[in-house]
Amino acid sequence: MEWISKSKILIVGLGLMGGSYAKALKRLGYHVSALGRRQESIDYALAHGIIDEGGTEPDPALVGSADAVIFALYPGVFKHWIREHQALLKPGAMLTDVTGVKRCVVYEIQEMLRPDVEFIAAHPMAGREVYGVENSDDRIFHEANYIVTPTAKNTPEAVEWCRSLGQILGFRKVSILSPEEHDEMIGFLSQLTHCIAVALMTCSDNRHLVDYTGDSFRDLTRIARINDAMWSELFLLNKEPLLRQMDLFAAEFGQLRELLAAEDAEGLREKMRLSTARRAYFNKE
Amino acid sequence: MEWISKSKILIVGLGLMGGSYAKALKRLGYHVSALGRRQESIDYALAHGIIDEGGTEPDPALVGSADAVIFALYPGVFKHWIREHQALLKPGAMLTDVTGVKRCVVYEIQEMLRPDVEFIAAHPMAGREVYGVENSDDRIFHEANYIVTPTAKNTPEAVEWCRSLGQILGFRKVSILSPEEHDEMIGFLSQLTHCIAVALMTCSDNRHLVDYTGDSFRDLTRIARINDAMWSELFLLNKEPLLRQMDLFAAEFGQLRELLAAEDAEGLREKMRLSTARRAYFNKE
Repeated sequence: MEWISKSKILIVGLGLMGGSYAKALKRLGYHVSALGRRQESIDYALAHGIIDEGGTEPDPALVGSADAVIFALYPGVFKHWIREHQALLKPGAMLTDVTGVKRCVVYEIQEMLRPDVEFIAAHPMAGREVYGVENSDDRIFHEANYIVTPTAKNTPEAVEWCRSLGQILGFRKVSILSPEEHDEMIGFLSQLTHCIAVALMTCSDNRHLVDYTGDSFRDLTRIARINDAMWSELFLLNKEPLLRQMDLFAAEFGQLRELLAAEDAEGLREKMRLSTARRAYFNKE
Repeated sequence: MEWISKSKILIVGLGLMGGSYAKALKRLGYHVSALGRRQESIDYALAHGIIDEGGTEPDPALVGSADAVIFALYPGVFKHWIREHQALLKPGAMLTDVTGVKRCVVYEIQEMLRPDVEFIAAHPMAGREVYGVENSDDRIFHEANYIVTPTAKNTPEAVEWCRSLGQILGFRKVSILSPEEHDEMIGFLSQLTHCIAVALMTCSDNRHLVDYTGDSFRDLTRIARINDAMWSELFLLNKEPLLRQMDLFAAEFGQLRELLAAEDAEGLREKMRLSTARRAYFNKE
């Protein structure tokens, strides 16, 4: 396996996700370095043995010695980094990312990239409602899915490398989707659900209801605590699929409203039975 | 406290909620009897020591000896039972219920009730996605809220009795609301969230996405497994408040959609920041 030789791994972006990758990879015995925006993150990671070395500036020696580079950056920052610093990358280096949207990133990065390095995109569908390397935790991978999103430009070796990265990181399931399939899926499963949670919190000032809140409301709005910088960027980068999903949901919600307004008990029950049957497929084994 | 003398408690309706009440009250040393629709439920409860006695028909001796009666029935069945069988109740008996909507039940029951018994309504905001006495579990009360919804017809003694019932059952918090306040609150916190979960499951056939599902989608749709008979009845009985809440949510969701369509990043971020700030109030201590 490629992994034997890819022993030096650089993580660019040392937040919650970058830190969690670092922890998992260090535990597996890899040499892990990191570039972070804040010196405090680097210091924290060094002090806690999360990385072997690191800094805030793209040091040529650090970048140039990495066999694999994992970009854990916002999409815009990721593209900017490649544009500015790709000359520093080691020939033959394998690059991957953690970006939550794919079409808008993958093709552009592959287009501008040096021909002697390869970028194979991936989306680790894991996260927490907290931020920073201080909260990183590679156990978040164990119940989560990891999606590799290759394009026609990728070699079978890179796809296999990226798939095995997901496996050694400890993800529950590793899948392969096209960037387009990925973005439709994420528009529905993740972005639409975040839109719903946000709208539920903002549609009325409901703070006086906190005393009466049951688990169903808490579950539904857990994801309403949202990193506005990151999620607004992800929403806008996936605008078309997300609008499609929002419109599908709004139309269905409107139908439910009309059934209620018309006091159509059987119509309501039919929707509920369909909902119950479909939800059964999503139970964890 | 009234509770010393109210030693014989009858539970009418031996499903998940009735069974959970029975378990808690038996554990506290009360004599608990039950009327259930299915003989198997009664047999199960007797065999497992959940009740002391019970049957499927309103036996005059059983009903007439109860100092307190807890109705764990669907709203329509509850009204029917009172209409048909209230002559059997012991003079001075205290009645309460577990119904999830209040205006449509409380006034009508109090109106038709014999003057020598008192009905004080309550809503234990606890539940599970499974049914039947076999799944009953009084631990579901420990993290849940219990709302007493008195009217002008209720005596202070009955309110106090009902409040202390919530306390000894082990609810996290016991509150008092008018039936109207209760129904608005439940329209938002519980019924609207169930509508959203149902619409999310029924808006498209998403079974092929099960492999990619993360926790946020699972959390959001956990309540999409819904008892269609019970919930359609509760929705229809709370039609006006629920329609108001659905319209508020739909308008807000539509606004979010327009911000996205207009690529208004700052507008999206503002909504997300408001959402995050409001959601913080709902964190459990």
